[in-house]
Amino acid sequence: MSLDPAIAARLKRTADGLVPAVVQQYDTGEVLMLAWMDDEALHRTLTTGRATYWSRSRRSYWVKGATSGHAQHVKSVALDCDGDTLLVKVDQVGAACHTGDRTCFDADVLTVTPA
Amino acid sequence: MSLDPAIAARLKRTADGLVPAVVQQYDTGEVLMLAWMDDEALHRTLTTGRATYWSRSRRSYWVKGATSGHAQHVKSVALDCDGDTLLVKVDQVGAACHTGDRTCFDADVLTVTPA
Repeated sequence: MSLDPAIAARLKRTADGLVPAVVQQYDTGEVLMLAWMDDEALHRTLTTGRATYWSRSRRSYWVKGATSGHAQHVKSVALDCDGDTLLVKVDQVGAACHTGDRTCFDADVLTVTPA
Repeated sequence: MSLDPAIAARLKRTADGLVPAVVQQYDTGEVLMLAWMDDEALHRTLTTGRATYWSRSRRSYWVKGATSGHAQHVKSVALDCDGDTLLVKVDQVGAACHTGDRTCFDADVLTVTPA
C-alpha cells in the first residue's frame, strides 16, 4: 500500500521529493515544529495516526516519539492551496523539541523594531 | 543596512538561500500560510513590521497585502532550535489565502484513518 494517488497527484514536492509539514498542537494552537514528509511518510501518518517524518539529516523515516516517548497523535492533516505545505494537528505528548522545550520556537525570539 | 550579522550567523538556509516561515495569527493561533524568506526579506520584516517574503515563482520580494490589501502586521518573529525555520506571528488583515479563504489550509483536509 502506498499514498492515495488522488493525494499524491496534488502534492508539489521540493527537488528532494519532500513537503514541509507545520505541526500544531490541536487544542492550544501552539506551533510545535516544522518537519518534512515524502509520500511514504504522509501515507504512514494518515494510516497510523502517528506523525511520521523524513529525517533529512539521518536519511530515514522517523516516527516522532519512537525513542523519546514524545509522540504526536494525529488529529487532522490538511494540504494548502498550492499543494506544497501540510498542516498536521496533533496531540503532543511532553515536549516537542529535542532540547526539552515545549515547542521548537521557544528559545530564540528575534526583535522586531519597526522604523 | 542588512540583516543583523548575529541573526544571519544562526540561519540555516536551503540550497536556494531561503528559510521557511510559518505564519500564524497571533491571537487565535490559526496557522495562516507558509512562505519563504531570504536574509533581506527577514531584515525588512524585522525593521518594518510588515511581513515580507521572497516569492520563489516570481523571483522577487513580496510585501504581503501590497496589492491585495491583506497585510500582515508583525507581532513577533522566532527562530527554531535548528535555525532553519521561522515562526512569524502576525495580525492578518482579511484573508491570508489568495483564494479568499481565511487560511491556506481551509480547503483540502485529508482523511486520517488509523488502521
